Amino acid sequence: MVILDELNMNEFAERVKKGGLVIVPVGSVEEHGEHLPLCTDSIQAEALIKKLADKFDAMVAPPIRYGECSSTRNFPGTITISFDTLRSLMREVLEELCRNGVRRIIVLSGHAGRAHMIALREAGREVVMKHNDLKLMVLSDYEIAYDLLGKGFDKDDGHAGTIETSRVLQLRPDLVRGKPRKAKVRPPKYMIYADPERLFPRGIWGDPSKATAEKGKKVEDYVFKELVKMVKKDILS
Amino acid sequence: MVILDELNMNEFAERVKKGGLVIVPVGSVEEHGEHLPLCTDSIQAEALIKKLADKFDAMVAPPIRYGECSSTRNFPGTITISFDTLRSLMREVLEELCRNGVRRIIVLSGHAGRAHMIALREAGREVVMKHNDLKLMVLSDYEIAYDLLGKGFDKDDGHAGTIETSRVLQLRPDLVRGKPRKAKVRPPKYMIYADPERLFPRGIWGDPSKATAEKGKKVEDYVFKELVKMVKKDILS
Amino acid sequence: MVILDELNMNEFAERVKKGGLVIVPVGSVEEHGEHLPLCTDSIQAEALIKKLADKFDAMVAPPIRYGECSSTRNFPGTITISFDTLRSLMREVLEELCRNGVRRIIVLSGHAGRAHMIALREAGREVVMKHNDLKLMVLSDYEIAYDLLGKGFDKDDGHAGTIETSRVLQLRPDLVRGKPRKAKVRPPKYMIYADPERLFPRGIWGDPSKATAEKGKKVEDYVFKELVKMVKKDILS
Amino acid sequence: MVILDELNMNEFAERVKKGGLVIVPVGSVEEHGEHLPLCTDSIQAEALIKKLADKFDAMVAPPIRYGECSSTRNFPGTITISFDTLRSLMREVLEELCRNGVRRIIVLSGHAGRAHMIALREAGREVVMKHNDLKLMVLSDYEIAYDLLGKGFDKDDGHAGTIETSRVLQLRPDLVRGKPRKAKVRPPKYMIYADPERLFPRGIWGDPSKATAEKGKKVEDYVFKELVKMVKKDILS
Amino acid sequence: MVILDELNMNEFAERVKKGGLVIVPVGSVEEHGEHLPLCTDSIQAEALIKKLADKFDAMVAPPIRYGECSSTRNFPGTITISFDTLRSLMREVLEELCRNGVRRIIVLSGHAGRAHMIALREAGREVVMKHNDLKLMVLSDYEIAYDLLGKGFDKDDGHAGTIETSRVLQLRPDLVRGKPRKAKVRPPKYMIYADPERLFPRGIWGDPSKATAEKGKKVEDYVFKELVKMVKKDILS
Amino acid sequence: MVILDELNMNEFAERVKKGGLVIVPVGSVEEHGEHLPLCTDSIQAEALIKKLADKFDAMVAPPIRYGECSSTRNFPGTITISFDTLRSLMREVLEELCRNGVRRIIVLSGHAGRAHMIALREAGREVVMKHNDLKLMVLSDYEIAYDLLGKGFDKDDGHAGTIETSRVLQLRPDLVRGKPRKAKVRPPKYMIYADPERLFPRGIWGDPSKATAEKGKKVEDYVFKELVKMVKKDILS
Repeated sequence: MVILDELNMNEFAERVKKGGLVIVPVGSVEEHGEHLPLCTDSIQAEALIKKLADKFDAMVAPPIRYGECSSTRNFPGTITISFDTLRSLMREVLEELCRNGVRRIIVLSGHAGRAHMIALREAGREVVMKHNDLKLMVLSDYEIAYDLLGKGFDKDDGHAGTIETSRVLQLRPDLVRGKPRKAKVRPPKYMIYADPERLFPRGIWGDPSKATAEKGKKVEDYVFKELVKMVKKDILS
Repeated sequence: MVILDELNMNEFAERVKKGGLVIVPVGSVEEHGEHLPLCTDSIQAEALIKKLADKFDAMVAPPIRYGECSSTRNFPGTITISFDTLRSLMREVLEELCRNGVRRIIVLSGHAGRAHMIALREAGREVVMKHNDLKLMVLSDYEIAYDLLGKGFDKDDGHAGTIETSRVLQLRPDLVRGKPRKAKVRPPKYMIYADPERLFPRGIWGDPSKATAEKGKKVEDYVFKELVKMVKKDILS
Repeated sequence: MVILDELNMNEFAERVKKGGLVIVPVGSVEEHGEHLPLCTDSIQAEALIKKLADKFDAMVAPPIRYGECSSTRNFPGTITISFDTLRSLMREVLEELCRNGVRRIIVLSGHAGRAHMIALREAGREVVMKHNDLKLMVLSDYEIAYDLLGKGFDKDDGHAGTIETSRVLQLRPDLVRGKPRKAKVRPPKYMIYADPERLFPRGIWGDPSKATAEKGKKVEDYVFKELVKMVKKDILS
Repeated sequence: MVILDELNMNEFAERVKKGGLVIVPVGSVEEHGEHLPLCTDSIQAEALIKKLADKFDAMVAPPIRYGECSSTRNFPGTITISFDTLRSLMREVLEELCRNGVRRIIVLSGHAGRAHMIALREAGREVVMKHNDLKLMVLSDYEIAYDLLGKGFDKDDGHAGTIETSRVLQLRPDLVRGKPRKAKVRPPKYMIYADPERLFPRGIWGDPSKATAEKGKKVEDYVFKELVKMVKKDILS
Repeated sequence: MVILDELNMNEFAERVKKGGLVIVPVGSVEEHGEHLPLCTDSIQAEALIKKLADKFDAMVAPPIRYGECSSTRNFPGTITISFDTLRSLMREVLEELCRNGVRRIIVLSGHAGRAHMIALREAGREVVMKHNDLKLMVLSDYEIAYDLLGKGFDKDDGHAGTIETSRVLQLRPDLVRGKPRKAKVRPPKYMIYADPERLFPRGIWGDPSKATAEKGKKVEDYVFKELVKMVKKDILS
Repeated sequence: MVILDELNMNEFAERVKKGGLVIVPVGSVEEHGEHLPLCTDSIQAEALIKKLADKFDAMVAPPIRYGECSSTRNFPGTITISFDTLRSLMREVLEELCRNGVRRIIVLSGHAGRAHMIALREAGREVVMKHNDLKLMVLSDYEIAYDLLGKGFDKDDGHAGTIETSRVLQLRPDLVRGKPRKAKVRPPKYMIYADPERLFPRGIWGDPSKATAEKGKKVEDYVFKELVKMVKKDILS
């Protein structure tokens, strides 16, 4: 793994000239129940990116550790930025990488909120419209991880649930405070509330009590394997 | 069904005072293969809304017939507006309804593009933050209709495919030009392209050849039934 | 008359290739006294456009039925959108039509508010700066209709007065609730108020009591005739 | 006449406490044919304001000498600012005057372009919505001067024509270079062009050859008298 | 000195063709203690510009007499405009000058607030990015005048202090009300306050009591001499 | 040192309730000659913040490692974001911290570009205007470090010069590639260029050859000592 900004200007220019791949980590500062840290999204993405970058000799750009988290906004510790600011920030970082000559980029976000992901993708879309030779992938590892719902994990597992707790247990067990009981959440699907937290009053969506580090490893291995396939086929081909 | 703007100011004020429900139709001007009209999204939503408004004595606001359709942008006939303009337009219409005293609103979009729906929902979220007694539902009928994928319809049916062609066959058979053969579409899931139309070169995502008016009726009945349940539970309770 | 979005992508492309004219109707949701419906502006423009499109085999784009109506904002039923949103919406619709190859466009608004018209015209100006071969006309039918002030109609007739009531009587008599007495309005011409409705407390500016369907017909015929002349000379030549 | 910014902070505060009237001059840098200077709009407004301020012991704010002049943009010397910037600038100046306690303001613009005036009025409207005890008048002296069209002046006199040339002859004869012959202008009324200057290729709209300083005096006296009436009735009452 | 907008369109075009230099004065409406007028910044810059324009036969554009003055905002008389509006205004004026063919411009501001100067420079930067043959200088005369701190003037002299009072005494003694005693100001350097005026409660930063017209002359001569050198070397070479 | 986002929601809430101080690190991705890494600004600020947080038991927010670096934009490796995006991002992070109850914040930036610092300070100003009990300090460590110019360091030392190279030598000697010779830079002070890199073609402003880890230590100690004094006096008092 090469940390992009530990290179100096010449080293960076040389790697770019060789067609180097850049990965941009995106995280969030967001409540994840009373058992997981605010950096839960960030550290999962960054761990995965480390492996990916090792595999493909990619440069890892400085992480953007602030995301759009409006649905958990009213819990303590959530620091959400607006859709527009996230979109602008991502657009400008992508544009600057392009201006520098980079033509293969992956944006990988540990946070998978719908608006958050659209902000990143709209940013991406604006940049590919200008640089149509750019190979750009934008995703959340959770968009892959949720393939496993119903396959060894509860169908309705979600935010701070079994999968997420398992992954943090594996990565940073020192940051996990217990494994709370299941939170049953049945929200009206299409209602928009000013206080969405009332739909999941403990900040959890799923069953942390079933989490284990082994499960975390399994999820991460699955996501990594899928990612590697996609990167080979869609970015490096 | 009451057409909101066929009321005069006093008639409108009276209905609002009684807690009247308002439904805002959203559509698009978007290619739907060579067999379906550009108004495909608009007419499906508006037909459904007519039934819904009849059922609940709701007022139907003037339709917004322009949507965000960036992925089909390069086909002829797509008139896409930006995320920001759609969001502003929806926010202002909702704010104005609120300012007039309306407290129950459904935004129902025939177009279900991801960014399009987020634009509508972000607009809604901004308005409920100011008016937290507003009961607001924002959805596409396709978010319900896709419950039926794998249940009598192909798992990968989509844009201008079996379901959509069936629904238009039932509503406006005069606007349907044939039932083209299946389009197999296997897009890279997370790549962002300047020319996304290359992923579905005929503007179709699914199998129009299997469409029938009966199937259209079945889908519409299902969606309507589900909608009625949700409106009763989440808006009118 | 061809409804633009009832075409499919190929039919639309073909008509555009032949240099087809597109007319974009703009209306409003605005109080018009206690006798006229909120859609008063919309239906007048749309009726005129129907005749115009029949005459010139034009395509009629989906109507924009929300306008900028700040001066009547405090009456019930007015749903006003901002100058900026109206301008963006119109600009994007025009730009998209241009991107699709359309080069003859008329924007015809039933609402004639000053700021509203400037929003439409600024949008138009921005688009012609990019596409200087575009033939673009932007007007309100009332800009023509007011030629008749002092010629069979009171000099100070205006909003929801004799002309407007007459036109609705002719088009949709079912939507007219009586013919209220004259409202004398003498506003300070250059003052800007937060509560402009105090200048015309009944939401009327003129004398509805003199309205007849015949007068409505006469106005419409006059406006239509003038429009036809202008379209021939300025757009189709 | 008191020049607002020649006061110091205490002197200004005292005048404001006494309910002092502030007049904000707006001009433009705009071609006015080959015979009139670019400051034509600015100097007319400022001369009028001087008299008005003398009459009412008003404070004159620093002039804004840049306006929105898109229709003359392609002639040399026109320095046009955008609608949005003009609106923001005017809004902020008005808001700041209000924040300082001023409650009587006249914005008087020598330039009378439609979009320009709407920018000033929209700014004003936004400010009165927040400060509804503000007495605010926004106008161009030409909105009054054009009362005289057909009354001693040609009906179609306009930009750099008889009236305007006469007024500059009276105010600053040293800046007038001759009295060119009449320019006949018959523009399509509703077309929007990228090159509007082709409608009046000499930058003139009317007949400068008929101009005299006496006529200029007459116009100015008329406008001043009307203004004084309105200020007394609408602002100072 | 040539006042730019006293030229007519042809005279302006001719001067531009010859490569004429344009100077844009920027000032402010800002408290300057109880002894100096609100136009203190404006008149200093404009006096200097007059001499500079005489020297180099430059055209002086209409002054922008509103600036960004947030730190003195809570004193009476300060009329501050926002960073964004100042930046837009300056950008558009510069862009329009460039569009007219001007290629040598000096923006000289009498107000030297940090954010104010960055707004002007960001505007300038955006314009030179588009017109890279533009020779553009943006500065405040105070950026030069403060070379003299510690050289005949107190090291901590500043806003409305010895230098500024001296300069106004020399230019417009009729506008000076006394020479107040020294204000000792020791603000925390990096704190950001909502009420920054508490750091200098009399609106003064320095020692007005030491001011004399002679000192004012000396400062102005120094600044002028330095400016002339820079203009010759960086703009006219 | 407490890493803010390693806390969970309860732990964070508790620290906030006790009045906890938050420090937000800001860096850049910017060329620093051919000898220093792109993260030069980031790592200096973060090292200092670590010591500061240890001293005051402060929480360190996730770093913002993208800054406004327009003057070095044309060297490889600089990833600059716009003034507006940086300002929005900082404003939203500060607002969110305030919304969570934080009332003591330090923003410490390793990058000290003028526009960059103004973006951070404008953001801060907007937030203190809403939360006037917030104690907010915004600075760059270089604003303190440059006290030492002329005191053991060259008067004209700057970007990637003796001080900066010394500090990186002390912190991360593994990232330093040699100590290039002095770069003499005499830029016109007030000119604005599209290609500012021509003023310092090697990306250096000062004399890296004189750098030593000891000097780096000395600078850091000085800055730390000064910072501690200011924090005690202005934030914690």
